[in-house]
Amino acid sequence: MKGFDFEEERLKQEIARLGAKRVLLQLPEGLKPEAPRLAKIIEKTGALPIVSADPCYGACDLATSEAESLAVDLIIHFGHAKLLKHEKVPTLYLETRSTATVDCAVEASLALLTRYSKIGLATTVQHVQTLDTVREILVRAGKIVVIGDAGRISYPGQVVGCDFSNVKSIAQEVDAFLFVGGGKFHALGVALATSKPTVVADPYDKTAYSVDQEVQKILKQRWASIEEAGRAKIFGVLISLKPGQKHFDEAVKIKDIIEKMGKTAFLFETREILPETLIEFLTVDAYVNTACPRISLDDASKFRKPVLTVNEFMVVSGESSWDDLLNKGLFEN
Amino acid sequence: MKGFDFEEERLKQEIARLGAKRVLLQLPEGLKPEAPRLAKIIEKTGALPIVSADPCYGACDLATSEAESLAVDLIIHFGHAKLLKHEKVPTLYLETRSTATVDCAVEASLALLTRYSKIGLATTVQHVQTLDTVREILVRAGKIVVIGDAGRISYPGQVVGCDFSNVKSIAQEVDAFLFVGGGKFHALGVALATSKPTVVADPYDKTAYSVDQEVQKILKQRWASIEEAGRAKIFGVLISLKPGQKHFDEAVKIKDIIEKMGKTAFLFETREILPETLIEFLTVDAYVNTACPRISLDDASKFRKPVLTVNEFMVVSGESSWDDLLNKGLFEN
Repeated sequence: MKGFDFEEERLKQEIARLGAKRVLLQLPEGLKPEAPRLAKIIEKTGALPIVSADPCYGACDLATSEAESLAVDLIIHFGHAKLLKHEKVPTLYLETRSTATVDCAVEASLALLTRYSKIGLATTVQHVQTLDTVREILVRAGKIVVIGDAGRISYPGQVVGCDFSNVKSIAQEVDAFLFVGGGKFHALGVALATSKPTVVADPYDKTAYSVDQEVQKILKQRWASIEEAGRAKIFGVLISLKPGQKHFDEAVKIKDIIEKMGKTAFLFETREILPETLIEFLTVDAYVNTACPRISLDDASKFRKPVLTVNEFMVVSGESSWDDLLNKGLFEN
Repeated sequence: MKGFDFEEERLKQEIARLGAKRVLLQLPEGLKPEAPRLAKIIEKTGALPIVSADPCYGACDLATSEAESLAVDLIIHFGHAKLLKHEKVPTLYLETRSTATVDCAVEASLALLTRYSKIGLATTVQHVQTLDTVREILVRAGKIVVIGDAGRISYPGQVVGCDFSNVKSIAQEVDAFLFVGGGKFHALGVALATSKPTVVADPYDKTAYSVDQEVQKILKQRWASIEEAGRAKIFGVLISLKPGQKHFDEAVKIKDIIEKMGKTAFLFETREILPETLIEFLTVDAYVNTACPRISLDDASKFRKPVLTVNEFMVVSGESSWDDLLNKGLFEN
């Protein structure tokens, strides 16, 4: 796969340095086709590579229980920066930086940023190394550029699907955000977390576009889901077992709150929150999702019942209002 | 849900007797809608119920790692008889017997059994209590009835998706099998494992039908998959982490055999073997499945690449022939 740095030399060196004998490879969906090639490189070091074929959507989803079950001595996690404070199994994060140049996409974004003078930058770990270039292009075009660093994740300006602390930390200072990266997922997160106009500069397609209309659609949809959940009598509270998504105590607290509201609540544990999983529980009217909050927001149309984030549930329970929610964020801690 | 015995009284008594404080409920897909009602019963005992929402296709798929992760002190597994020799977490199996009467379906099956005089019986745990009645009806119709007991699973005459030892043990003595139960899944297993004509008596629909045509389709399809895998250069060897489906050492052995054949092999671990999981690995030509062998046989049309059982792979490797395979069984140990 061209366009990404898989750090093959570092991979070999780290396996040798750690003396790993059995290695679990984990890659996000877009990078999975590279797994056999990388496994072959690992095999040549003398270690036995095992590829995790399961879906992987973030470093929250580290395959530690799989690694323990297979007596693996090293996890190699591609495509995400470290997120968990501690790993139960030694883990090497290979961030898989993109080698795509950003100039054309950022130049294209200028036409969409004419109304704004102070621009906040956001990107994923794949493109953090480009932020200086992005800043230069914007400054040359007369913009004031701000890059946030709240200190919670690995790099200034970086966002991950559920952590937008870096952009939130500068939201008051800027007129709009420019997100550098592919796809709408992270850009929508920036816009939802900050309520600021957000433009995508896509280095893969060399294009730029706004996500503001889509954000409005999501907000309307979330409002409808919260309304519908307000009428629910029976709730399911969803618990994930993924290391960075497991919030058991929070789930039990939410169950208690629901019961104090005179309603019924059940705890459901699940590895993947899928429409076909929830469809089995016909009597449940609405769900509260203590796992990855982005499933609630981005996959809403696939679910037959409302699947609220914890923050959204607080509106249903009366502990928060819609306005509070917009200020605090639909899904962030 | 009418028609099944969920043993609610025994459920309460066992929770009290074991002093369980946190309980994980696991039900197969067809019974999942009952989970909230059963959780409510458990809650009234003072224990905290958590429902496993993930797919569950057998007692091989016991949610022990989920139970450990959630510090659960009792798993209640509905719908299957005990299969594992030891459980890492205390487990109560509630077999969820069907209360459907079998008379009408068995009477209907007689028209399909006229050519056969010696009939072997097979059923799932849901209907094992009906086998005496089934025998009586067949004997009254002039048949000789045989019920196999190879001692490997819980009840004489019982089959589970991957263990047909009870019917195999009597296959030489009978002309045909009568399977009592719903759906084609187990009946196809009986026919594939024994190469005998197999008729289903479905107590839910009160109907009877033969699966012999479908068996021929499966055999043709398997032959085509084996042929295609024979031309493969790159293999994936699939490893499951489910307690009754984990065969890591076998997977490594198969990888070695493939490499001795001058071909390439990669190990893949996965929780669920799904078409969308395997589709990511574009360069892999064929898979060998060391997990649930029924996925290879019953879901073949959903996969783009051949997914062989271990027994089928032995034909590709030359250790076995198609005739041996038919004698030994496509998938059984």
